[in-house]
Amino acid sequence: MNRLFHVPLSPFCRKVRLSLAEKRIEVELVEERYWEQEPDFLRRNPAGKVPVLKMGGNTLAESGPICEYIEEVHPEPPLMPREPLARHEVRRLVMWFDDKFHHEVTSKLLYERVNKKIMGMGYPESKNVKMGAQKIKYHLDYMGWLLDQRRWLAGDVMTLADFAAAAHLSSLDYISDVDWNRNATVKDWYAKIKSRPAFRSILADQVPGFPPPQHYADLDF
Amino acid sequence: MNRLFHVPLSPFCRKVRLSLAEKRIEVELVEERYWEQEPDFLRRNPAGKVPVLKMGGNTLAESGPICEYIEEVHPEPPLMPREPLARHEVRRLVMWFDDKFHHEVTSKLLYERVNKKIMGMGYPESKNVKMGAQKIKYHLDYMGWLLDQRRWLAGDVMTLADFAAAAHLSSLDYISDVDWNRNATVKDWYAKIKSRPAFRSILADQVPGFPPPQHYADLDF
Repeated sequence: MNRLFHVPLSPFCRKVRLSLAEKRIEVELVEERYWEQEPDFLRRNPAGKVPVLKMGGNTLAESGPICEYIEEVHPEPPLMPREPLARHEVRRLVMWFDDKFHHEVTSKLLYERVNKKIMGMGYPESKNVKMGAQKIKYHLDYMGWLLDQRRWLAGDVMTLADFAAAAHLSSLDYISDVDWNRNATVKDWYAKIKSRPAFRSILADQVPGFPPPQHYADLDF
Repeated sequence: MNRLFHVPLSPFCRKVRLSLAEKRIEVELVEERYWEQEPDFLRRNPAGKVPVLKMGGNTLAESGPICEYIEEVHPEPPLMPREPLARHEVRRLVMWFDDKFHHEVTSKLLYERVNKKIMGMGYPESKNVKMGAQKIKYHLDYMGWLLDQRRWLAGDVMTLADFAAAAHLSSLDYISDVDWNRNATVKDWYAKIKSRPAFRSILADQVPGFPPPQHYADLDF
């Protein structure tokens, strides 16, 4: 059985879960308190981070490389286009969300409000929370601009770029930090992706001490 | 003519320069003061970062996605293996250097000592410099451990993982922040990669106000 070492609200883990689910690859989810840096876990991934995927006897680390691997060994249904320029656009946007969006928004909101508490690292810093709440507006506008020209974020078919974006936004939506009224196009895009069977496990997540808001799992939010 | 918008000591730009040079793809280098966020530059890459590559009429951003694109359109000589698991290992190690090493070492040494001055952002913070100088030891040891089992970092052939690592280490070597006496295996690896023709342009870099040490361009360092 494949096993994914993860934490429920990590956008990096969620991106891998979405890829696996879209390709109907079964996986057992194992919660990993990676910040405790247990020797057993460090042997699996010396970088000490989740996600880590055990699949067919191999141990894989880093969400981007894991998703590329899944795509190469389970190409159907495809989450990457075939043409190099289109593939570049998917990868550029995955980096946009996993690097820029993560740095400017996810780490400022989710990590301050949730991770710090779970890891026993104190209270949210309001300066960071304010900065994240400010910056997400620009990102939603950028997504809206992309989606005004394309059916999905990286082109006319759904790709890993959509899963990367949806992974971050769904984690932030769990703590009510996404204003869905800001951009109708982005809201429509999220409604489409949220209603996919691959999203079900993510909508069922429950983090002790942090009950999700009513609208989180609602397909008609 | 292809154009690469870059800054000389950026490890992300150096990784792309090494890939292009190894594949003998000619490129004009254009220095870009990306931190000034000129509208023309932001149109090329809304993320406001270097490297940006103009190639065959297309504008490409993000060093990882750029290198994957180059590999797909110019596969010879290969910098990625063919087998999915080996490709995962290359990508995992590229992320190791561009994410973990960058966060723990490059940003703590190079950015404190050089970028801050160039960008007019004040003096190095000695706490960060100390932390970077401490952490690089662990990374050199990890590289040595990998190289005790493999001829190159990700396996028995040279790949993008070696270029990612050499890009970071060469930038740090420019400011004398690498102790080559720590690990003889790592020093041998760097001597091998440094003597490749693809490395020449990097060894000729000169940053005004920061003359490189004598050993920087010396193949017998």
